[in-house]
Amino acid sequence: MEKWLMGVDLGGTTIKLAFLTANGEILHKWEVPTDISDQGKNITADINTAMEAKLHELGEDKSRILGIGMGAPGPVNAENGVIYEAVNLGWKNYPLKQSLTEKTGLPVWVDNDANTAAIGEMWKGAGAGASDMVCVTLGTGVGGGVIANGMMVQGISGAAGEIGHITAVPENGFECNCGKTGCLETVASATGIVRLALEDLKNHPESKLTDLLGANGSITAKDVVDCARNKDAYALHILDRVSFYLGYALANVANALNPEKIVIGGGVSKAGDILLKGVEAYFRKYTFLRVRESTELAIATLGNDAGVIGAAWMVKTHLLD
Amino acid sequence: MEKWLMGVDLGGTTIKLAFLTANGEILHKWEVPTDISDQGKNITADINTAMEAKLHELGEDKSRILGIGMGAPGPVNAENGVIYEAVNLGWKNYPLKQSLTEKTGLPVWVDNDANTAAIGEMWKGAGAGASDMVCVTLGTGVGGGVIANGMMVQGISGAAGEIGHITAVPENGFECNCGKTGCLETVASATGIVRLALEDLKNHPESKLTDLLGANGSITAKDVVDCARNKDAYALHILDRVSFYLGYALANVANALNPEKIVIGGGVSKAGDILLKGVEAYFRKYTFLRVRESTELAIATLGNDAGVIGAAWMVKTHLLD
Repeated sequence: MEKWLMGVDLGGTTIKLAFLTANGEILHKWEVPTDISDQGKNITADINTAMEAKLHELGEDKSRILGIGMGAPGPVNAENGVIYEAVNLGWKNYPLKQSLTEKTGLPVWVDNDANTAAIGEMWKGAGAGASDMVCVTLGTGVGGGVIANGMMVQGISGAAGEIGHITAVPENGFECNCGKTGCLETVASATGIVRLALEDLKNHPESKLTDLLGANGSITAKDVVDCARNKDAYALHILDRVSFYLGYALANVANALNPEKIVIGGGVSKAGDILLKGVEAYFRKYTFLRVRESTELAIATLGNDAGVIGAAWMVKTHLLD
Repeated sequence: MEKWLMGVDLGGTTIKLAFLTANGEILHKWEVPTDISDQGKNITADINTAMEAKLHELGEDKSRILGIGMGAPGPVNAENGVIYEAVNLGWKNYPLKQSLTEKTGLPVWVDNDANTAAIGEMWKGAGAGASDMVCVTLGTGVGGGVIANGMMVQGISGAAGEIGHITAVPENGFECNCGKTGCLETVASATGIVRLALEDLKNHPESKLTDLLGANGSITAKDVVDCARNKDAYALHILDRVSFYLGYALANVANALNPEKIVIGGGVSKAGDILLKGVEAYFRKYTFLRVRESTELAIATLGNDAGVIGAAWMVKTHLLD
């Protein structure tokens, strides 16, 4: 009987779950809502219930599952599986690995969700097996993961790979949720793009964005991208600034690490060439020759599946390699 | 008979050599001049001659030596020991490992000299065994090395760890030898500090540096540091700028990697608190909380010995661990 890997990607709204082959092919995937009541104390039991229900539905039992890998939204001690903090879930120094092991009776490995997404892209996505890789996810926030010599870089406090908290604006930057100012996340996430656009919009009545703001009471990152595609000068200027911040920050990550690939994912990356051509240009401007010639920018290919695939990789690595 | 490790640190002017115990204690160290004639083709034979002469002097023979580790001044393919380029030596795609193996009959490992210095500090110096560490050397240029999960990060093209080529000045920066502008090296090396000081010195006749320039026809980085210690306002302003560039660049390296320590070495680090307190302040300003609380700036402790110690570590790791 071929054993399956189980991957779990925990978010503040839904839990993504999947059964995968040992080669990382997804056999079954589904989602359940995240119950954040009572400081998230029901989450691990819910995962076990969801797993057992799906196995029952498939006519399988738990012996089919080799182990569970899980990505969680916060800094993690990958050694002991304690999640230092997950604000959205109400967890603080929560023994996630221990709790999920107890609930399921299966071996469990835990890492930060941005890290598992990065591993997923390394294993089955845009990284295509690259052993030195950096991932950056441009969504509501900006997350990231660093892989060197084929291993996740955790850092001394589990905070490595926080590309979103690279300081992109050294003076007079926006305040970030992390308490610092000028983080890349404040200018290159979906919310950051909106904030940048609103900052000086009152001086640009000619921009279509002014009309949209008047009509809808707010604008979105997609509005900025759409207006730029229609050659709205102010929207193009905003995307140029976003491209500069991203290209400059990623260039300096590349100058320090010379990874084979920097993989860009998340909703904002769907803006496509109107954003990414600019990022590439600034990236090339700010990398030195050997890095410019060897480190490649690439677009993530796994979408929302990256997390469960990377989570499953931990099971494979620990039990099958 | 206890076997010795041999460490070699190749520079453009001298070759540093040492015999060490398996624990990394230096037993004997000495230097010979680097012969850069004929595109450096005599260098590996010179190393063998220097080793044999020293062994003879000590009444030992080659069987005492377990193997040779070597740091070389340029990007290296650590897998096959080819040095891609060492401009000062006239080497281009030079099979250094193969040549030194042939000349000495001993097993050889080769890495970039900034990397071996970083490994030396990790093993026996300021890193004190830290498995996640970044080293930066502030000398005539700025070099660096990144260690993650206890391993040197080489990057896809051997160019990882080039902290000196992080872009510190995105617009209107000085030209760097690497062909890019605004590299950290152009503003934080000894030559960079002088360049920064000279840039606007003509508008500061009140500065002692103006007198020194008139008297000596030039100024040095040490002049800038000495004047700052004597509260010369312009010199203090220059060191504040240097501190900003260094603190900002290192903070962003730390935000990406969360190493246990960032070890600062090289001649410029001898400026001490007048420079380093400023670096620390900017570093703290630009790191996010988890990193600020866990990543420490430290001063290198091994000085010129770091290279031979880190080179010897490669022998230990490959043959004894």
